[in-house]
Formats: sequence, structure tokens, C-alpha cells
Amino acid sequence: MDIAVLIFDDLTPLDMVGPVEVLSRVPGARIRMVAKKPGAIRTQSGVMGIIADHGLAEITRADILLLPGGPGARAMAEDEAVLDWVRRIHPATRWTTSVCTGALILGGAGLLRGLKATTHWASMDRLAGYGATPVQERVVVQDKIITAAGVSSGIDMALALVARIAGEDRAKAIQLRIEYDPQPPFDAGSVAKAGPAIVALAR
Amino acid sequence: MDIAVLIFDDLTPLDMVGPVEVLSRVPGARIRMVAKKPGAIRTQSGVMGIIADHGLAEITRADILLLPGGPGARAMAEDEAVLDWVRRIHPATRWTTSVCTGALILGGAGLLRGLKATTHWASMDRLAGYGATPVQERVVVQDKIITAAGVSSGIDMALALVARIAGEDRAKAIQLRIEYDPQPPFDAGSVAKAGPAIVALAR
Repeated sequence: MDIAVLIFDDLTPLDMVGPVEVLSRVPGARIRMVAKKPGAIRTQSGVMGIIADHGLAEITRADILLLPGGPGARAMAEDEAVLDWVRRIHPATRWTTSVCTGALILGGAGLLRGLKATTHWASMDRLAGYGATPVQERVVVQDKIITAAGVSSGIDMALALVARIAGEDRAKAIQLRIEYDPQPPFDAGSVAKAGPAIVALAR
Repeated sequence: MDIAVLIFDDLTPLDMVGPVEVLSRVPGARIRMVAKKPGAIRTQSGVMGIIADHGLAEITRADILLLPGGPGARAMAEDEAVLDWVRRIHPATRWTTSVCTGALILGGAGLLRGLKATTHWASMDRLAGYGATPVQERVVVQDKIITAAGVSSGIDMALALVARIAGEDRAKAIQLRIEYDPQPPFDAGSVAKAGPAIVALAR
């Protein structure tokens, strides 16, 4: 099972690493990190360098396509070379997925027209411009396109995906391996729960 | 606020990226990726290359030290150059932290003697060998040493840490930015919840 992950400068690392941590544990999974050109990208705020082992031209098919988000996703969503690649890979995937503002890349490629979709709460108003119907859910499945909400939601999305491709027991075993028994010290993970003062600080 | 993150071959990427995603959003945070030598490491199963911008010798102090785990942590926990570095950095930190089997590195450095600590559930029996008392909690704070349980627990640990260093509102705002409103599709994130069949599959 070939999984192609698009990476780019200014991506939000957890958008990408959450699902990769889950999907890489499926037996037979092969993850390939793809960027416009092979070499290192720097994540959001320059925090870390991650190596793209492959350029777009090298990867011509994937069973799963994963598009993470982050500040750099807006440039990707307007980059014709990237959008052409997404349009070429998508028809033969089993699943085409995004996390956070990775949905804007799907939108830019024209793949969200007429579909329900989600993204990071602070970018939700951009989905309509791509012909999508924004939905405030953590994971939205539309035929073979799955969009997930902001950043950490990619973990939930990937576990749901593993259940579909490798069965619920495998998904549960991976959840246990990554000890995903979340116990956040606060209950401020959504706009509704956080309240106006925290939303203002987060913006 | 200088945050030094030890990285090494065969680390579990979410161990590291979960807390880094949270801590890098604290105003004034500077994250530095440190390995035995500068250059690229490959994460667990070779999935991705991450760049260590610094070697051990370059980093002589940190406000926060973060030790992630993964299969490669066992080698680090027996590597005298690494353990010496941890012993040199620790006295001047405000917080010395581990995620998952990163606790074994703390143990190898002799820093867990007489303390309660936690680690990944499948490695819990190794803590006693370092003179620590294993505790099945998600985050264990002992003076300035914080150990977290397996993999995804680093997100919870880091949010609790942000509340201590930058206040609860900042921690909540970061939780909202990363949309950490976990909704795992299953409830199998601990040994007790997963049950024996899933535990056997996970081992």
C-alpha cells in the first residue's frame, strides 16, 4: 500500500506526522515523502527540516494521497505544478485525504466541487470558494475523499481510515501502540468549547 | 525560551512532533533539534528523514529538554556520549521532559532514581531497573522532571507544561490552534480499555 505525502515549506508538522504515525503501522504500508523537488523543507516557523525523498515527477501513483496543511498550504493551493500532480494522482487512489488547510490544496485542484468538506476552523470560510460545502465535523468522508479538521484531527482521521482498509482490530491495535487515550488538561479544542476570549487569543 | 530536542535514528516521530507542535507556539520559544552529530536521522521504520541542525557539542544549555522515544531510544539509553550530554544539560533546565521510551534515556542518565515515572505501556517494566517507581499515569511530574506515557501522550504533557510556563489561557489557545478536541473512533488507547485480544495484536 503506497502512501504519498505531500510536504512543503511552512507545513504544520503535526498535520503530517499524526496520520503518518498511524498509517505507517499498517502492515505493508510504504510511506513516501514528496515535495516539488527532492530535498529538505522547513516546517512552520522554521522549526525543523524534513527530507522529501522524492520530487513530484517521481511519484506517479499512490493508494493513499495525504495532503497536510499549514501556512504553506496556501501557496501549494495556487501552484499549478502541485495542483496538476494532485489531479494526476487522485483518479487512481483508493483514498485521497487532507488534514487542516490541506483541504485548500484539494480545493485548488478542483476536487471538492459539490462535496462536503472540512478544514481548520480559522480557514473554514475559504472552502465555499472552491465549491465545497463547509461542515464543522472532525472527519468528513465523501466517496473516497476524506477531509479532516485542524492539525491534531489527522490522528482521528487516520485511525478511521485504517479501520476501513485493514479492519477495526488493526485500527484499535495501532491506537493502543500509540497510546492514544487522550487526556487534554483543558477542554478548549474547539471554538465552541474555548469561548470568545480564548478564540481571540488564538487568532 | 530555549528548547532542546534530542533526535536519533529510529525515533517515533509523533513522540517528538506532538510536544514540538505545542511548545513551538509559545511566544519566544526557540526549538533546536539536536543529534549526536548534525545531519539527517531516519525515524522509526525509516519513514522520514528529519534534520538535526545541531550536534551535542553545540548545545550547552536549554530551558526545556525534550527526550522522545521509539525503538532507537534503547541505544541512546546506553550511549555514554548522549547520557553525559543529558547529565550536563539537566542541572540548568527549568524542565526536563520525556515522552514514551525517552524515559529510558533519563533513566540511563541516572535522573529517575527514587522518582515516580512513566513510559510506554510495553516498556513499563524497564523503569524499575533505573531505580524509578513506575506509575500508570499519562503525565507524571516530579519536581522539574516530567515523564509522559506512550507516543501521543506528549501532546497532553506539552499542554500541561505550557500552562505552567505561560499560563492556562495560552495553553488553551494553543489547544484551540491545533484543534485538539480528540474524537478517536475507538476507545482502545490503553491496555485496560483495549482488552487482551487487541493487546496481543499490538504486541
